[in-house]
Amino acid sequence: MTRKSRGGITYPEGFSASGLSCGIKKKGKPDLALLVSEGECVAAGMFTVNRIKAAPVVLSQRRIKTGYANAIVINSGNANACTGEAGMQDALRMTEKVSQFLTCNSRKVLCASTGVIGRPLPIDLILGSIPQLVEKLSPQNHLDCAKAIMTTDNYSKEAEGEFQVGKSIVKIGGMAKGVGMVHPQMATMLVFLTTDASIEREALKSALQTVVDRKFHTLSIDGETSTNDSVIALANGKAGNTKIVRNSSSFELFVSALDQVCQKLQSLLLRDAEGATKFIHITVDGARSRTDARKIASSIARSVLVKTAFYGEDVNWGRIMVAIGNAGVPVRENSIDINIGDVSLVHRGVGLGEFQEEKALEVMKGSEIHLLVSLGMGPMTAEYWTTDLSIEYVRINAGYKGRT
Amino acid sequence: MTRKSRGGITYPEGFSASGLSCGIKKKGKPDLALLVSEGECVAAGMFTVNRIKAAPVVLSQRRIKTGYANAIVINSGNANACTGEAGMQDALRMTEKVSQFLTCNSRKVLCASTGVIGRPLPIDLILGSIPQLVEKLSPQNHLDCAKAIMTTDNYSKEAEGEFQVGKSIVKIGGMAKGVGMVHPQMATMLVFLTTDASIEREALKSALQTVVDRKFHTLSIDGETSTNDSVIALANGKAGNTKIVRNSSSFELFVSALDQVCQKLQSLLLRDAEGATKFIHITVDGARSRTDARKIASSIARSVLVKTAFYGEDVNWGRIMVAIGNAGVPVRENSIDINIGDVSLVHRGVGLGEFQEEKALEVMKGSEIHLLVSLGMGPMTAEYWTTDLSIEYVRINAGYKGRT
Repeated sequence: MTRKSRGGITYPEGFSASGLSCGIKKKGKPDLALLVSEGECVAAGMFTVNRIKAAPVVLSQRRIKTGYANAIVINSGNANACTGEAGMQDALRMTEKVSQFLTCNSRKVLCASTGVIGRPLPIDLILGSIPQLVEKLSPQNHLDCAKAIMTTDNYSKEAEGEFQVGKSIVKIGGMAKGVGMVHPQMATMLVFLTTDASIEREALKSALQTVVDRKFHTLSIDGETSTNDSVIALANGKAGNTKIVRNSSSFELFVSALDQVCQKLQSLLLRDAEGATKFIHITVDGARSRTDARKIASSIARSVLVKTAFYGEDVNWGRIMVAIGNAGVPVRENSIDINIGDVSLVHRGVGLGEFQEEKALEVMKGSEIHLLVSLGMGPMTAEYWTTDLSIEYVRINAGYKGRT
Repeated sequence: MTRKSRGGITYPEGFSASGLSCGIKKKGKPDLALLVSEGECVAAGMFTVNRIKAAPVVLSQRRIKTGYANAIVINSGNANACTGEAGMQDALRMTEKVSQFLTCNSRKVLCASTGVIGRPLPIDLILGSIPQLVEKLSPQNHLDCAKAIMTTDNYSKEAEGEFQVGKSIVKIGGMAKGVGMVHPQMATMLVFLTTDASIEREALKSALQTVVDRKFHTLSIDGETSTNDSVIALANGKAGNTKIVRNSSSFELFVSALDQVCQKLQSLLLRDAEGATKFIHITVDGARSRTDARKIASSIARSVLVKTAFYGEDVNWGRIMVAIGNAGVPVRENSIDINIGDVSLVHRGVGLGEFQEEKALEVMKGSEIHLLVSLGMGPMTAEYWTTDLSIEYVRINAGYKGRT
């Protein structure tokens, strides 16, 4: 086992992973994944705010309240959502079977599912493959694991980071899946984060909340929040560092390193957005409050008309004004400025003319576009990421079930 | 002048209309319209709730507060929105010029604009054509008027209705424009309603609010609310009926007839939705409150994933569940039923299997689809109309400015 072959969720010490095909998906595609820590971890999670939650979300959310976990079992190809009491029984059985092989308490095993909603989970296929899944566990198999959680993802998504606490090196790893339905408050996005840090449970929870709010909550592909979204972090303490507690300098270092890992995962999620041809980075400044700034950025990011205009490379700033006005936040029309890239398009609410629009057209032709809206009402700022809405997006989403 | 040749907004007695091309649009397409009453009208209006309002909206909203009006001048091809103080001056000049020719107070002239946002209004073209526009006024020219307010509409939209009050026949007429950006709280939709009823100003206002709330506020094409949306009603009293006051039986008749006229206009708007291939009628029942029912219906109607699934004739009820859960309203998953047409798809939160989905697929192939969501939590109901989201929709909206 070389250092080099570790990575993603097994980059930190003491984690191993595996992935295989158990037959949920067609054509032998990987669809079952396992992540295990050598020792018990402190655990924290954030879950979908959709009122309809998949069985694995309900179960993991309940179990993570104890604050401790050893393993996470994940399947793709079937969301185990809207499956009633049978779905909950299936989620329980998945985790029980894993716990038997790991000889730990089943309540220390978390689970997640992603894929089609409303189909019974083919639980026998899953249970039948768990022995092999456990057998394959290894720190080298992080990529198998990351691949087995993919649905319509075009590539697996992994990230690593580290920092020093005293003489100890603390490592952080992560993997994610998600391409569409990504929207603040989670979306069909699964993110698993691991660290060998020794960290207080409350500190882990607080760090996770901070980073998820900064990163994944400012990303909108199509404004939907799924039944299954989960972000789970496990910390096993194998780095042997002095325990990280809140409001300490090592806590700040931990948050910063976690932020970088999540930044990389977020960027991988965005770049894999279904049918996207452009990535749009929205900044709203000059707002009275951060909430106001965020509402306006979100309204722009969710506007179907703004997104189709970006797709068409149409410098239609009127649609941006419409979205600003639709955010439910008081604005002063005659103090609004809009810039695309380094081109000023609107000053004090009035368009600067066709010459500027011609210049902005050059910026629109790029694949990464910065949009700056200045409200001129206060000191607060928010950032948001979105994509354009392409013909390809509609094509993909008009026939999703057929493609899995 | 034969009875037959009257129609739309000139169907009621005492209204005349005209429309022509003044050169805002290319290729000599009609772009300037005028509606005039022989005598002063009581007037009521409802306007966009977007925080960014076009100059003609600000002006008409202010003027209509007096409760009286004689005429409305409307241009298409340019929204006169985000045009600053110059835009307001242009709106004022349009109405002043009309008032000079009609010899009425300019404050009794309302205005509306629709088209591209953020371009200076070519006011000289408009002012230069007003003499001819007034000259062409006639009860027969309602269709010219209805055509001159169109933007990307594929056809003009007119409706008529009537009812009896005592021995008097009261007539109602209407015209509308709008194809995309149609969403509750108005959208880029202009609706003009005329009646020869003698009606108290407050009664007209109340009737308009009731009907707009029932009809246009339950229609969502793409979730946007524009800078220019206006619904304006004028009543000139030429029918000679006993004056209609609120809470009377004639008021109920008036509301009912107005509702029918708006129903027809709504249906024309929906059928002309940009790139739509299917019309989806959503009913949510069993809600605790009408607000809850409406929030859920709206969440379904606005979901890009639901709309693309309808376009793809994909019986993906999981996306409907996701949209239900995303509405911000408490729901009980295990009491939700979903029906498409007469096919039961979900009972008590659980899918009824592939056999039912096959049957639902037949319903999905139709061009008008009824979706019923039963929440099982209370007695309240709401209805909503939407369309699918097609490849053609994206194509149209990716290059809107080039097409005007």
